[in-house]
Amino acid sequence: MQAFIVPVGDEILIGQITDSNSAWIAQQLNLHGISLRHAMSVGDKHEEIVEAIDFALSQADIILMTGGLGPTKDDITKKAIADFFNVEMTFHDETWSRIVRFFEKLGRPVRDSHKVQCWMPTNATVLTNKMGTAPGMWFEHDGKILVSMPGVPHEMKYLMEYEVLPRLKAKIQAAPIAHRTLLTAGTGESELALLLDTFEDTLPENLKLAYLPNLGQVRLRLTGRHHDENELNTLLDEKAAEMEQIVQEFVFGHDTETLEEVIGKIAKAKNLTIGTAESCTGGGIAQKLTSVPGSSAYFEGSIIAYSYAVKRNILKVKDTTLQVHGAVSEATVTEMVSGALDSLGVDVALSVSGIMGPGGGTDEKPVGTVWLAVGNKERMETHQLKLGRTRALNTEYTVVFALNMLRKFLLQ
Amino acid sequence: MQAFIVPVGDEILIGQITDSNSAWIAQQLNLHGISLRHAMSVGDKHEEIVEAIDFALSQADIILMTGGLGPTKDDITKKAIADFFNVEMTFHDETWSRIVRFFEKLGRPVRDSHKVQCWMPTNATVLTNKMGTAPGMWFEHDGKILVSMPGVPHEMKYLMEYEVLPRLKAKIQAAPIAHRTLLTAGTGESELALLLDTFEDTLPENLKLAYLPNLGQVRLRLTGRHHDENELNTLLDEKAAEMEQIVQEFVFGHDTETLEEVIGKIAKAKNLTIGTAESCTGGGIAQKLTSVPGSSAYFEGSIIAYSYAVKRNILKVKDTTLQVHGAVSEATVTEMVSGALDSLGVDVALSVSGIMGPGGGTDEKPVGTVWLAVGNKERMETHQLKLGRTRALNTEYTVVFALNMLRKFLLQ
Repeated sequence: MQAFIVPVGDEILIGQITDSNSAWIAQQLNLHGISLRHAMSVGDKHEEIVEAIDFALSQADIILMTGGLGPTKDDITKKAIADFFNVEMTFHDETWSRIVRFFEKLGRPVRDSHKVQCWMPTNATVLTNKMGTAPGMWFEHDGKILVSMPGVPHEMKYLMEYEVLPRLKAKIQAAPIAHRTLLTAGTGESELALLLDTFEDTLPENLKLAYLPNLGQVRLRLTGRHHDENELNTLLDEKAAEMEQIVQEFVFGHDTETLEEVIGKIAKAKNLTIGTAESCTGGGIAQKLTSVPGSSAYFEGSIIAYSYAVKRNILKVKDTTLQVHGAVSEATVTEMVSGALDSLGVDVALSVSGIMGPGGGTDEKPVGTVWLAVGNKERMETHQLKLGRTRALNTEYTVVFALNMLRKFLLQ
Repeated sequence: MQAFIVPVGDEILIGQITDSNSAWIAQQLNLHGISLRHAMSVGDKHEEIVEAIDFALSQADIILMTGGLGPTKDDITKKAIADFFNVEMTFHDETWSRIVRFFEKLGRPVRDSHKVQCWMPTNATVLTNKMGTAPGMWFEHDGKILVSMPGVPHEMKYLMEYEVLPRLKAKIQAAPIAHRTLLTAGTGESELALLLDTFEDTLPENLKLAYLPNLGQVRLRLTGRHHDENELNTLLDEKAAEMEQIVQEFVFGHDTETLEEVIGKIAKAKNLTIGTAESCTGGGIAQKLTSVPGSSAYFEGSIIAYSYAVKRNILKVKDTTLQVHGAVSEATVTEMVSGALDSLGVDVALSVSGIMGPGGGTDEKPVGTVWLAVGNKERMETHQLKLGRTRALNTEYTVVFALNMLRKFLLQ
């Protein structure tokens, strides 16, 4: 079974937005053992959408369209689909009631323009979208499947997860596929590949190892396919355990866990409270930690000390420290941890101060210089990073590094 | 003249990387008045690459391929192009000398495997790549153009800027295209469409309005095409101003600005310092504000007060307030602003406290209940949001809403 993604929208073709939906969908298809033939973007033009559907159906069995389902004039995906199938449009009352309720809940008035979103090609199976006003649609045609979803990422993801993937799973009849993913941080893809070189050679034909690198992290994913699901799971468990043994010093979790979730589990298990004192990351570490549901059980708060004044007044960093060593120094991040332990009243605190760029660098401390510290009342660990020139990447990498540093400290 | 982008690589089709090259190329083409017909990703399979080239040439005049030019086994773009054109490969001595010099400069040994990168289809015009080892290639065929570039973003960008776009500019003679984008926050796509309904009908044939919604924001983009660039710009300026007049209460910026950048500009112009006191957003607002280069000029810091203790001890929220009204209340966010003004020593402070879910909701205060306040020593504004059930979305929406609330307060 092959799939074909068709993102619809002029905004993609003029490069105003990056189509990140396709990569996400591709990942999901891959996890379900469906290979992707092509993703082909198309503009908001009726004839071109119809042609794209025709081409996609000639190339693959499952067509996944995103975008062009809004209430405005340039949203014409539905009409193009109806014309492709040569069917009429019918008004879907259920969708209208849902839209009315949706707006009632938001306390905002429903507009007549939303009625546009209730007209569907007669051959559509309507897929309820609990995240927005535009429903998804499912079509079956000559043994092939066509799905249309909104382009808003969280709406598309909701529909994929709750409506589309379950239906696709029921349709396809490939040998069961299963995965085991090891999550690592603190080393690169090539270092891991070197460590796992011999292990990879021992993998049977039906098991494949993929390296999925992301800023500061690498996921190691074992994928297996076998007609006997029990046998497959036993084999995968065995090989995943073997692999974990080899790279264990870098492993922080499994499957879909995140660093911040793992930190939460450790903090809860050890009954420790945590907080941060952030300068250059500007709250990025706190935001990751609080993105975990229930994080209020162990996360108390943070001081975002962007200015010298806040570092001095709340975190009690000494004026002489700032003057002699500067805000980006081991001495400052150490005092920031002490100040955070006191002011936030936490068991463990993490601090970070750095120069993220593009401005602010000097010969001695170029852009990308970052100091981190993590400590409790008894001990303190510090680390210096030397990163690149891009503000956003420097911040993102530092947040991941800091979380891993906190995790390792909590484990000791 | 129409273009067609063909990103090559299995890593795109399994969703391992997001193809951000296509959006960048699309922007460049658009700026040069070349419209993009499709971008269609293809895997590292010889037959599929050949088919994709064939299809692309049937659809457009300019084919831009990225990726598959590396020194490893799965890099087969060149061979596929040669086979498509039915030509042989020849060794390009100049490229080899350049690769040798490239590695000498890096102080690293040249590998024999890099010789692979010197074999080119005989009909290729070689495009020198000063950023890496894989050259680009330019082909002309039946009045159409095919270009192949490496997939590494900075190498592709170098080749586009210095080799491909200058050549394309010399070839094409299309009417110039231009855009004006209004950025809005605080209302939805359908409300804007209602306000702009009459305006849209007054647009001439060569002007098009697109609604580009994102969580809490909608971009309104006017696109025009006309052979006389001056006339086009005058028309666009006029229509954009007309449109801004109609929806002005929601407009926060233009073109590629962000809310946080606009806030920075206002704060700098008014010489005001700002800070935040965040509970449920956990630092998300501070992180946005500090993502702007140079934000240290006006952003002092934040108190992330996740626990009652931090709200009491640092922000001086009264114990009775927390007990009588709860942490998610107008009274608490008001006191949080006062506390932030004092402890951070800022001119304007913003605070937020809410229940992001999935847990923590009650009948009286369900998940999605959020209180915000913004104030200075003289005045205070508060607002209550009633959002949905998804933690990540609630947080993201609240951050955007809070930034817009701060922006409006700063403007007064």
